[in-house]
Amino acid sequence: MTRRASQRIRITYRLSLRDGESAEERGREIALEQTVELPDGCYPAAIEQRMVGRLESAERLDGARWSLTLSYDPAIVGAEVPQFLNLLFGNVSMHPGTLVTDLELPRAVVERFPGPRHGIAGVRAACGNVAGRPLLCTSAKPVGLSSGELAEVCGALARGGIDVVKDDHGVTDQATAPFLERVERCQAAVLEANAETGGSTLYFPNVTAPVSQLPRRVAAVSALGCRGVLVSPFIAGLDTVRWLAQESGLIVLAHPTFSGALFAGEHGVAPDVMLGLVLRLLGADGVIYVNAGGRFPVSEAQCDAINARLREPYHGLAPALPVPGGGVDVERVPYWISRYGVDVMLLIGSSLYAQGDVEAASRRLTETVRAHGRE
Amino acid sequence: MTRRASQRIRITYRLSLRDGESAEERGREIALEQTVELPDGCYPAAIEQRMVGRLESAERLDGARWSLTLSYDPAIVGAEVPQFLNLLFGNVSMHPGTLVTDLELPRAVVERFPGPRHGIAGVRAACGNVAGRPLLCTSAKPVGLSSGELAEVCGALARGGIDVVKDDHGVTDQATAPFLERVERCQAAVLEANAETGGSTLYFPNVTAPVSQLPRRVAAVSALGCRGVLVSPFIAGLDTVRWLAQESGLIVLAHPTFSGALFAGEHGVAPDVMLGLVLRLLGADGVIYVNAGGRFPVSEAQCDAINARLREPYHGLAPALPVPGGGVDVERVPYWISRYGVDVMLLIGSSLYAQGDVEAASRRLTETVRAHGRE
Repeated sequence: MTRRASQRIRITYRLSLRDGESAEERGREIALEQTVELPDGCYPAAIEQRMVGRLESAERLDGARWSLTLSYDPAIVGAEVPQFLNLLFGNVSMHPGTLVTDLELPRAVVERFPGPRHGIAGVRAACGNVAGRPLLCTSAKPVGLSSGELAEVCGALARGGIDVVKDDHGVTDQATAPFLERVERCQAAVLEANAETGGSTLYFPNVTAPVSQLPRRVAAVSALGCRGVLVSPFIAGLDTVRWLAQESGLIVLAHPTFSGALFAGEHGVAPDVMLGLVLRLLGADGVIYVNAGGRFPVSEAQCDAINARLREPYHGLAPALPVPGGGVDVERVPYWISRYGVDVMLLIGSSLYAQGDVEAASRRLTETVRAHGRE
Repeated sequence: MTRRASQRIRITYRLSLRDGESAEERGREIALEQTVELPDGCYPAAIEQRMVGRLESAERLDGARWSLTLSYDPAIVGAEVPQFLNLLFGNVSMHPGTLVTDLELPRAVVERFPGPRHGIAGVRAACGNVAGRPLLCTSAKPVGLSSGELAEVCGALARGGIDVVKDDHGVTDQATAPFLERVERCQAAVLEANAETGGSTLYFPNVTAPVSQLPRRVAAVSALGCRGVLVSPFIAGLDTVRWLAQESGLIVLAHPTFSGALFAGEHGVAPDVMLGLVLRLLGADGVIYVNAGGRFPVSEAQCDAINARLREPYHGLAPALPVPGGGVDVERVPYWISRYGVDVMLLIGSSLYAQGDVEAASRRLTETVRAHGRE
């Protein structure tokens, strides 16, 4: 039952060897830990060939730091997201200083997951066939406003021409703006603004919810005619992205809150792998990430890597929209367009709100961006 | 609407100040980032009082390292697990070098979550009223065995007197042992062994599953008479623990796979806060954690801290069982009992399997442990 390497899942780990440990020993330790979780020889021989990971390559980086690539039979994952995450960074997460830097999947595994249902083309179409320019996204803020106040903000942003107005990710179902009341009013405000301006702004409610609430919230959102949703997979569970992509028909925009737990230096899963490849595989049509030059310490190279993972050809998956945010300043929008290209959605918040009149600020921003494209 | 400090959620962060930054500035940054996500002055004044976090104290540790405690109005959390996690370590996770070291909750917040339904007393009762000694738990391994082969392992462990036989956390719904077939056969094997020996071994199937599958798996498990389940909240979503505790009636045993993402040194959420307080609050009756002295680098002090969080009086929550595992050697069982006390469940795997005949090895182990208690 040997499979060709190309039919196996390959995971690359960057780590430091311990004193006296060889790369082969550490590779074998990971191979066992992530699969049978038993010492050598404590399981039937037939299991070795099929289930235990294999060290495919070991490259010394510098000093004790190595890059190890292991491969695994896809049978160990089955077809479910939790077990996929378990193989990616399960028990091995308990060894500090282990960073997953690459993940390669055979097409047969990719096909078990939905990938983006809409992708970049679908989101552009839903936003009124916008072509040749980046899309613009803004959150209605802040948490603590009433539903009516949030709806006013949504209306102002829509009249200003923002393509996608979303709930703030911290706005869920608090008493200040209960879910259904808020979504009804915000969606109505955006539709009203569109009727007034002839625009095509979309409102994406935040459906991040307890597992038992998710289906009914999504049903309510769909019934109101919303075309997409915001979800925070790292607090709601990553399988919610897969479920939304497969079951809801809606555009899925993923928010990275809590994901920084994975990105603290030399331990975790590299942002391009997790936010780029994994979220796209699970079905995100757009992925918000922390942009360089904002209020979080992130490099442009990291953003480029995420963009590449979201947009590059990959076993037939539709490309997903990079959505850089977290302190993207209106003044620097031309720079980001020149660096990232037009197939992005820029998430701009604070620097609009700081101007006081968000409708006028949004209008100035959309005019700048529209100068880059055609509709 | 000022509330007393004791009615607010308090979170303590350990972090290093940046060059030229004061503790007050960093505290204010976190207070805004975790709530309104807008710069000072870009939101209505009424929101400040109610929604923005407050720096309660700042203590210099050494050099640039500080411990900051902020408080938040419970209104910002509402009553849902994802938003609770968002407040705990949401956007702030994107600032490397931020470690949540403490969390204090007012009783009103604790009462929004179920806590352990069974707790230590309930698990002891379900295991045949075991008193005065630790419980013993072992996983049926490894992934890749057929349902029949796993059932044989379960039967051997049960005949050997292990109190709780659980699925390995990497065994979910793979083709080698599909969920329902496996659970039926393993549960039957354990019941048969009990009938033979007069024992009270419980079998806990792994219900870690896609969100849409969880309810039907739990229904199947209940229908088969299983008394508890294993779940891996860090890959299935932490709200699954709350849902299981609130909806299923089953004993909930939580597995820490993937949680190491949060525990890599000076970034994340301290293990005692996450595995101890948070999982107990959400409803885990038992929490597996990586024990000191095994195959993961963990200190005994960390284990003591987790044990304390799981067992200490806390706003009326039932105490939950500490379940140290990950390389607990049979030889050291007396030591762990003397250190941790009897209110634990020892998860012992590899050192049983390494003895070849797991039934005989289990019997020797259970005799050792039974010598410590009365039944």
